[in-house]
Amino acid sequence: MTHRNVVIVGGVAGGASCAARLRRMDEGVGILVLERGPFVSFANCGLPYYVGDVIRDESKLLLATPELFRRRFNIEVRTGNEVTAIDRKAREVEVRDVGTGRVYRESYDALVLAPGAAPVRPPLPGIDLPGIFTLREVPDSRSIREWIESRNAHRAVVAGGGFIGLEMAENLAHRGLEVTIIEMADQLLPPLDVEMAGYVRERVASNVAHLQLGDGLAGFEQASSGGLVVRTQSGASFPADLAILSIGVRPETDLARRAGLELGERGGIRVDDRMRTSDPHIWAVGDAVEVANTVSGERELIPLAGPANRQGRVAADVIAGRDARFRGVQGTAVCGFFGMTAALTGATEKSLRRAGRDDFEAVYLHTPHHAGYYPGAKPIHIKLLFRKPDGLILGAQAVGEEGVERRIDVIATAMQMGGTVFDLEQAELCYAPQYGAAKDPVNLAGMVASNVLRGDVEFAPWCDLADTSAFVLDVREPGEFQCGCLHNAVNIPLGQLRDRLAELPRDREIWINCGVGQRAYYACRILSQHGFRVKNLSGGYQTYCAWESETSK
Amino acid sequence: MTHRNVVIVGGVAGGASCAARLRRMDEGVGILVLERGPFVSFANCGLPYYVGDVIRDESKLLLATPELFRRRFNIEVRTGNEVTAIDRKAREVEVRDVGTGRVYRESYDALVLAPGAAPVRPPLPGIDLPGIFTLREVPDSRSIREWIESRNAHRAVVAGGGFIGLEMAENLAHRGLEVTIIEMADQLLPPLDVEMAGYVRERVASNVAHLQLGDGLAGFEQASSGGLVVRTQSGASFPADLAILSIGVRPETDLARRAGLELGERGGIRVDDRMRTSDPHIWAVGDAVEVANTVSGERELIPLAGPANRQGRVAADVIAGRDARFRGVQGTAVCGFFGMTAALTGATEKSLRRAGRDDFEAVYLHTPHHAGYYPGAKPIHIKLLFRKPDGLILGAQAVGEEGVERRIDVIATAMQMGGTVFDLEQAELCYAPQYGAAKDPVNLAGMVASNVLRGDVEFAPWCDLADTSAFVLDVREPGEFQCGCLHNAVNIPLGQLRDRLAELPRDREIWINCGVGQRAYYACRILSQHGFRVKNLSGGYQTYCAWESETSK
Repeated sequence: MTHRNVVIVGGVAGGASCAARLRRMDEGVGILVLERGPFVSFANCGLPYYVGDVIRDESKLLLATPELFRRRFNIEVRTGNEVTAIDRKAREVEVRDVGTGRVYRESYDALVLAPGAAPVRPPLPGIDLPGIFTLREVPDSRSIREWIESRNAHRAVVAGGGFIGLEMAENLAHRGLEVTIIEMADQLLPPLDVEMAGYVRERVASNVAHLQLGDGLAGFEQASSGGLVVRTQSGASFPADLAILSIGVRPETDLARRAGLELGERGGIRVDDRMRTSDPHIWAVGDAVEVANTVSGERELIPLAGPANRQGRVAADVIAGRDARFRGVQGTAVCGFFGMTAALTGATEKSLRRAGRDDFEAVYLHTPHHAGYYPGAKPIHIKLLFRKPDGLILGAQAVGEEGVERRIDVIATAMQMGGTVFDLEQAELCYAPQYGAAKDPVNLAGMVASNVLRGDVEFAPWCDLADTSAFVLDVREPGEFQCGCLHNAVNIPLGQLRDRLAELPRDREIWINCGVGQRAYYACRILSQHGFRVKNLSGGYQTYCAWESETSK
Repeated sequence: MTHRNVVIVGGVAGGASCAARLRRMDEGVGILVLERGPFVSFANCGLPYYVGDVIRDESKLLLATPELFRRRFNIEVRTGNEVTAIDRKAREVEVRDVGTGRVYRESYDALVLAPGAAPVRPPLPGIDLPGIFTLREVPDSRSIREWIESRNAHRAVVAGGGFIGLEMAENLAHRGLEVTIIEMADQLLPPLDVEMAGYVRERVASNVAHLQLGDGLAGFEQASSGGLVVRTQSGASFPADLAILSIGVRPETDLARRAGLELGERGGIRVDDRMRTSDPHIWAVGDAVEVANTVSGERELIPLAGPANRQGRVAADVIAGRDARFRGVQGTAVCGFFGMTAALTGATEKSLRRAGRDDFEAVYLHTPHHAGYYPGAKPIHIKLLFRKPDGLILGAQAVGEEGVERRIDVIATAMQMGGTVFDLEQAELCYAPQYGAAKDPVNLAGMVASNVLRGDVEFAPWCDLADTSAFVLDVREPGEFQCGCLHNAVNIPLGQLRDRLAELPRDREIWINCGVGQRAYYACRILSQHGFRVKNLSGGYQTYCAWESETSK
């Protein structure tokens, strides 16, 4: 059965993709897109960069116009038209023309909901004062720009240190503003594991005026000077000429809920893998729906543009009578800030622990993004999580200046295909000295993990270091050791180890540390073959510093 | 059975990896590395960049010293010691100390051959004149540097336009030399398909003094001024202060052949997937061996550092008594030159045709490396080859300025896992506007290919365009059309197509063209649903230009 008359609510990523794909699949169907805002198919991921004047021309953000949709796709797009109700029985939607206030009805054979998600705006004292912004649509970014320019703003508070918060902080700093970031969690980029977020914190802290972690918003006041005062739960207060709320988004499910469509446990619209809601004539796509996480199997809210686009295509295919299915989401994401990139895919250690899992291992690497002998090599910090004992890749996080997204993309692709760490070990990737290494960081991550699974090395858990009764051995050179070392560590450089075995205990476990984990691995191999009980501290002193600074707060 | 006494011939990529891995696997085995040259474990991929003074310090090229091998790995390395013969019966090698001329023997339980490959130096007239160089070892690059500096050289001929040839051309140009490239094939980077090499030619041509394609070396003469004259088979001659021969490498199989080890059809040492030669006590790894190509199934010579390293590990594991296997090589490679990157993985169209295959399809894309609305987007030209009808990925080539190696790495990873174009379509990759697009170039490549396999679009073969009786339709805007179009093409902009169906023939096939293939796809969908017989010209006018300029020569 194909549908002759399709109405799509929302015309940005998922809705616009669905409309265009549907037209390609079916030249005869009627397609009407109803978009509440003034624009269709705009680049919402570009909004922070328009605020920052990196993107200078607002028209660049408009990827398509209603006119283009009409001419190219024979699709009718009505911006400024909000769907206010769904009459499922009559298969009609109630629409309000935002400009004129006129209310009218449109009938559908198939309805696609792509309403997106709205920035959270908590009911705090003073929340409605002028100068407090969220960022969702083009006019929001225009308002922020105008506010900054007209008031000659020079101090901003960004509430929320997630992906959008960091992008906003970078862009405001790029415009010359002094930025304070307030984040409720004890870390920036809360999706990352805390020790990986340490590299983010370090970079951000040196590029903003103030970083307030582990503290929530309490409210806003008008300062006597005319600006704002932003108050936090800890009692701190920050003067600001403007404040940006980027403390998360909430799926726009009002319309669906009022229509009696089933919602999921996370509050999103429930859909099957054909993007169909509990009503067989209604589909839903994008930030408003819950989708299956391919790693955890759980249903999650994952407000990302890539999945939204693919979901729109699936809904279109199904409406056009095809057997398309959405594969689910593994949570690949990237964020750039102050010359640094953080990216992740799949599960994190904290998400696995939250799910009660302990059938996994984590390894850390700190490896140059290309051959160290070629000028300009920058470290990438990688954490790879994999299942024991089969090595199925569960997730990866990486932070660095160059080549970060490339390595996460490779691991994400391997994961999508059910890959193991042995596949990463063997991966044949592009290599020339300015692009990578004969053993690419991805290969190295796979090798380290494979070593664990083959029983060639065992890792000591960093979290137990403080309480361990193990003998802590540091195999770096004395000069490195003197610059900083683990508590109670004994230094025997790797090159002397074979000659100094007598100095090591046979009745205690030996935990071995070095700079980034490689020499400790060599030492583990030497000592274990000499009958010592040894464990490696994954990622070495580099990981220790990240771990220590983030967990001892 | 493990071996107590292992001799490794050659101490660079494969040999050095094998030695270090073997020590980690077996603390008790004796390991002796015999290296003919003066250095062990040096960065041969970095040599062109040392010539170019991008890498300024020769010591950066030395990744390890014999002293480090001794201290860290308890491995004896003898540089300047050449193995001249293998006595398989006695399990001994004959060694010549290059410095003293002393000849001695060493016995082995296991022998690993990692002799590498030597640059081809054809027996042409004048080939031994001073100023004609090949590049294999650190002293070669040092000699070239010294020659350039001491003679104040300003004109160089690079013979060979492959990977090393282009790297040398770039580096010599970087030093301010006028470079002429002479390449026997009609294209640069002969592993690429010719139309993809067009982008390379264009970039290189505008950065060197002269590009001589389709012409071979004939010989060298001493010029009266003291420099060289390089003569080609076509009768051209090029004055030069130095000439670099980078016309390929030949596996160093002398030792193996004289020892009666089996060689393969391509002239490399034959090994099984455990890297074992026809003698059960002898292994071979690296550029001298033939390895299985995982796409073609053929045995090939693939002189690349990554596979050499992995082969060294496999040989070490097997010698240490483990069940390791080498998976084969898919031919992932990358080359950077004059701000551009070319990369490939798997099969090319010409390698498939050479193998007599026609069960595949090729699609072209020309897509910005990140969101077009974010400043600085650069096109990536992609060619994706896949099997019909199941969509198994057979290979990919990409050329561009940014993000090229990342996309080839993702496709290489999917290929390694047996991925199809449907997997690329669904791939969940890193996206933020400065890193990619909600539909990443890899997704788009998968979508275009999937459209073919689902029967939604059919591609016309570019090679048949010149002779086709089809109606050629161009759906670009008139302004674009006027700047250049296909022979006999009729222009109807996409936006007018639905209203102008009457102008199109129903009795002939219609081949549709646009800028990069997207609008032509939309037009195909419109017209095929209206009963027209249509084909898309993949990659549009961009592909046409590349195709035309490279195949009409």
